[in-house]
Amino acid sequence: MVSAGVVGGTGYTGVELLRILAVHPDIELRAITSRGNAGQRVDALYPSLRGHCELPFAEPDEGVLGELDLVFFATPNGTAMQMAPALLARGVRVIDLAADFRIRDVDLWSRWYGMQHACPELLEEAVYGLPEVHREALRGARLVANPGCYPTAVQLGFLPLLEAARVDPSRLIASAASGASGAGRAANVATLLCEISESLKAYAVDGHRHLPEIEQCLADAAGGAVDLTFTPHLAPMTRGIHATLFAELSADAGDGIESLQRLFESRYAGEPFVDVMPAGSHPETRSVRGANTCRIALHRPQGRGRVVVLSAIDNLVKGAAGQAVQNANLMFGLDERAGLGAPPLVP
Amino acid sequence: MVSAGVVGGTGYTGVELLRILAVHPDIELRAITSRGNAGQRVDALYPSLRGHCELPFAEPDEGVLGELDLVFFATPNGTAMQMAPALLARGVRVIDLAADFRIRDVDLWSRWYGMQHACPELLEEAVYGLPEVHREALRGARLVANPGCYPTAVQLGFLPLLEAARVDPSRLIASAASGASGAGRAANVATLLCEISESLKAYAVDGHRHLPEIEQCLADAAGGAVDLTFTPHLAPMTRGIHATLFAELSADAGDGIESLQRLFESRYAGEPFVDVMPAGSHPETRSVRGANTCRIALHRPQGRGRVVVLSAIDNLVKGAAGQAVQNANLMFGLDERAGLGAPPLVP
Amino acid sequence: MVSAGVVGGTGYTGVELLRILAVHPDIELRAITSRGNAGQRVDALYPSLRGHCELPFAEPDEGVLGELDLVFFATPNGTAMQMAPALLARGVRVIDLAADFRIRDVDLWSRWYGMQHACPELLEEAVYGLPEVHREALRGARLVANPGCYPTAVQLGFLPLLEAARVDPSRLIASAASGASGAGRAANVATLLCEISESLKAYAVDGHRHLPEIEQCLADAAGGAVDLTFTPHLAPMTRGIHATLFAELSADAGDGIESLQRLFESRYAGEPFVDVMPAGSHPETRSVRGANTCRIALHRPQGRGRVVVLSAIDNLVKGAAGQAVQNANLMFGLDERAGLGAPPLVP
Amino acid sequence: MVSAGVVGGTGYTGVELLRILAVHPDIELRAITSRGNAGQRVDALYPSLRGHCELPFAEPDEGVLGELDLVFFATPNGTAMQMAPALLARGVRVIDLAADFRIRDVDLWSRWYGMQHACPELLEEAVYGLPEVHREALRGARLVANPGCYPTAVQLGFLPLLEAARVDPSRLIASAASGASGAGRAANVATLLCEISESLKAYAVDGHRHLPEIEQCLADAAGGAVDLTFTPHLAPMTRGIHATLFAELSADAGDGIESLQRLFESRYAGEPFVDVMPAGSHPETRSVRGANTCRIALHRPQGRGRVVVLSAIDNLVKGAAGQAVQNANLMFGLDERAGLGAPPLVP
Repeated sequence: MVSAGVVGGTGYTGVELLRILAVHPDIELRAITSRGNAGQRVDALYPSLRGHCELPFAEPDEGVLGELDLVFFATPNGTAMQMAPALLARGVRVIDLAADFRIRDVDLWSRWYGMQHACPELLEEAVYGLPEVHREALRGARLVANPGCYPTAVQLGFLPLLEAARVDPSRLIASAASGASGAGRAANVATLLCEISESLKAYAVDGHRHLPEIEQCLADAAGGAVDLTFTPHLAPMTRGIHATLFAELSADAGDGIESLQRLFESRYAGEPFVDVMPAGSHPETRSVRGANTCRIALHRPQGRGRVVVLSAIDNLVKGAAGQAVQNANLMFGLDERAGLGAPPLVP
Repeated sequence: MVSAGVVGGTGYTGVELLRILAVHPDIELRAITSRGNAGQRVDALYPSLRGHCELPFAEPDEGVLGELDLVFFATPNGTAMQMAPALLARGVRVIDLAADFRIRDVDLWSRWYGMQHACPELLEEAVYGLPEVHREALRGARLVANPGCYPTAVQLGFLPLLEAARVDPSRLIASAASGASGAGRAANVATLLCEISESLKAYAVDGHRHLPEIEQCLADAAGGAVDLTFTPHLAPMTRGIHATLFAELSADAGDGIESLQRLFESRYAGEPFVDVMPAGSHPETRSVRGANTCRIALHRPQGRGRVVVLSAIDNLVKGAAGQAVQNANLMFGLDERAGLGAPPLVP
Repeated sequence: MVSAGVVGGTGYTGVELLRILAVHPDIELRAITSRGNAGQRVDALYPSLRGHCELPFAEPDEGVLGELDLVFFATPNGTAMQMAPALLARGVRVIDLAADFRIRDVDLWSRWYGMQHACPELLEEAVYGLPEVHREALRGARLVANPGCYPTAVQLGFLPLLEAARVDPSRLIASAASGASGAGRAANVATLLCEISESLKAYAVDGHRHLPEIEQCLADAAGGAVDLTFTPHLAPMTRGIHATLFAELSADAGDGIESLQRLFESRYAGEPFVDVMPAGSHPETRSVRGANTCRIALHRPQGRGRVVVLSAIDNLVKGAAGQAVQNANLMFGLDERAGLGAPPLVP
Repeated sequence: MVSAGVVGGTGYTGVELLRILAVHPDIELRAITSRGNAGQRVDALYPSLRGHCELPFAEPDEGVLGELDLVFFATPNGTAMQMAPALLARGVRVIDLAADFRIRDVDLWSRWYGMQHACPELLEEAVYGLPEVHREALRGARLVANPGCYPTAVQLGFLPLLEAARVDPSRLIASAASGASGAGRAANVATLLCEISESLKAYAVDGHRHLPEIEQCLADAAGGAVDLTFTPHLAPMTRGIHATLFAELSADAGDGIESLQRLFESRYAGEPFVDVMPAGSHPETRSVRGANTCRIALHRPQGRGRVVVLSAIDNLVKGAAGQAVQNANLMFGLDERAGLGAPPLVP
């Protein structure tokens, strides 16, 4: 049994970790920390966990956390990097669900996140936690950078095309929409029900922090620079990311949708959490609600020279807590699917 | 391993049964029938079940169903009573999620449901599937009438008060609201998103079919006639029932909210799926989303002579498919909680 | 042309006032104040008003406001009472959309609102702004206490019954639900979309500030004390209040629903903003979205001894800004319907 | 006073026409037809119109309609073309809110709409009702083809760029999302609240009927062929279209976002219903809810070679009924803004 702690358990990714770990057969949650709610029982803040979690929130204490096998950081950007070195030194493995270890170029990271990095020396060791790309490195990793929600949906949709050089890497477009839980559980006028229900809008079109993360990883796949236009949107719902990806097919890729479909099915054969739907499908975000699955479908409209990839995840699961548990399973040699087997909640 | 079938697997209670049974350790789903969709794979209609269910919908065939241990009817009212006698004769046990076996008075049933009963001789044997009242009778039962969604929420809230004669049974009021999934998955203008989102309304205030069911069961608890005013509402959401119950405290029940709280805690001690929250709480329907729990909280506003009971369930789980699985667990001597252990999905 | 100002223009009732006044033929908006947003253009905060309002938010300045004919206070409780005396002294008329002048008993007010009243001497002069009761007093009034949203919906539903002594005033029950805009536009975790969408809950069941206001006014109608149990609920939507009212018919009121229907139709004959629907109807809150109408429908379930009244309003219009404009029209001798003629927005 | 009729008044565009015409100062609604609901009062089907419309639905009768000045067709595709010739022959002017007269190439129309055209001889006379392009032709037009909802949002966003040759017309991408009212008020499982709330999906990615309409009009603007990839999405809301448009800037258009902003402001100067927001804005669909406005904002992410245009409309207003009234105003020489002056409904 792997003993685990969650730092920052009051946000949506934190409580989603608690929901998943509550039924995980091989990971036992021993500590949940929250500065603001220390002393309060978790199930007082989240009555949905009554009967599933008897722990109180604790102060983030290095002594307590240092006794565990694994610590998840479900904290704002800039927190994990403060505590990770000491925990690693004590032999605790770390998964950061925020962005502290996602970008290899520390200057690029500082520019986008507006702070100095506290432990740049760890960036090289940190494994980017997208199992569909880095599965082997994740086995046994000490420090894992859990991918962002948009990056997960966008990468899984573009990867086969870029790895196989089937599209022009200089003309990539990702138009994606997220539910409001992606904005976190903070007191904020902008995410009140009255501000965002019954409405849709784009945001951060001029530059979203997930852009450098996505471009870094897509460049790895393409074996060279990529140029991505990434426009996030806020959709009037709680969970779910839907990414609509556009790419121009390479001149010699004119062999049709069947060939592209085979490429994706082959790339993701055996992947437990990527579902390549029949060509022409339209994945709904609700079809992955509460589940660690990414559903993908391919289109080549009017047989013209562009491919459209649709990619849907639950931002709190495959886009955050579920992928973190998938990574934990790999790190500790558990069944990669452990704790992640329940079907989505539909309707 | 109990072999089971679902008749009428395309509606919301049917697909919810599939979701729950997909991870049930002791019940194996062997057949799903749907006249309208026979031949189609279940996961083509419900992509959320891709990877969880490989069965196609079949015609409802007595031969196939007759080989099973258990058949769930997730069908409209009037269907189960047509097939139940033959299945029972073959030794198959039956749980009807509709209303065919809920009302003991067959004339009363006919008046409210507008049809003749096909097998009134089975009404006496049928066990009303509210485990909190009929647990012992459910163990080993052949035929179970799964309660309605509103009746479950309303009864669990009123039962302790009536059993202990703490309130006036002639002045009961239940104002309840349901999400739209209670209206089923039928092509219907009245439940289009554009008709019901961002709006609330009462419906069937002059008489809802769940009234006689509730009054029958509350009369059993009270040991005499009750008079209930029941007003259902449609809330702009998919899942959840919230019942707000009003009753006048008996003259000698003036001992305060603490006494009422103890009454409820004592009545439901050990119940795996009833959660009596601290007095003064306000259960949210989302706090039971996807779970088989009924959360209850008590209030005695301004210390006056009325008690207000708040009761929340997921109409598709404790109000339908989850309670059916709980009943199946009891009927076959399984752990009553089997397959029903996952926490609610919040947010 | 009546010159008007709005103090506290950034909240939902404030912006609703701006929306209505933007097309009012006889009232001209001259000033909008907001301490927090002074200097910012109104349409920068509310792009929906681009092209409709060129004013910036100003500091609340007595000099500027003192030049106007009318000032609306769309502020938190306790603000209007600080400024009203000075404005009245300058000849400015005042409508407070908050609770400062709603309760005649200043001690009762202090108990529920937790503060000392700044100008108790004005309570007697203040006219309670429910035109269906106080129309004559409102004509020419200097100071109007605009009713609360729940009180408007509940009173309009109960008034005919109490005025005509058709029900028992000691057993009144109001179960009401409001959209989230009733909670205002404050940064608050509790009203985030992710906290309240797809969920329903009761709140403040042990005591909501609107209770004494409602009881005061119903007692006036009944000509004696009333006992009301009032349970508010939060519905997952932005606008709308639906009140479901229960009362026990007096012994001599057994003349049926037709008689009750005639009572309501007669009581509200000629009322421009109360719509008594055919008996047995179920008003939807969306049917009054954006409009100043209260729709009412009567039921007498199963012909038993209880009457159920359904009452629906838009909490921001008839429950706040619209009623304030209706009151302003009366105060200044304008057409009572001026500015309030547009149909609701459906779907 | 222009006398008008609405054929097909039961759908969402029909009732939206009724809502707008109810307060139009110069157009009087004289007849509303609906085969399915003939004889029923309009306000029985739409209680929101109680007090605003006393008409019953009538059978679509050429005699009655033939006496009017103007008939709006809010009918399915293929209906208006059956009745338009006879009405025009009687001197009645016609606005078709469906697609019968939008495509000049009758073969292309037949391919996409799957039927023969009933009056191809009228296609040349029909004026495409986008006032921002065809205002002069609309003045006095007899037959107007009201644009589709997506085409309105997409064209207004692309037009300035194509007319000024600032982008590559062969690489246009439009990723747009619509609320569910775009799918109409038909009994349909696919648009039930339980199927689409809390979810987002693309649809018709392989080919939506609005594609040829958009390409035809953009080609007019570009003065040559265009190649557009158009991916519609269904958003979990009732009203609103948000279009996110991507285009590659021409080599000589590298003069930055300020220049593009000036281009749009100049193109739409004086347009009563196009609002070019400050560069870098993010229009919300709710900011135009119930209004005839199209809000547009420009971005040039990271200063790279692509422009992103955001365009938001209310699909039932500027995308349907509101634009139809704007066209009617032009056709009859009325103030173009008549009946369309109310601010959007926010929140």
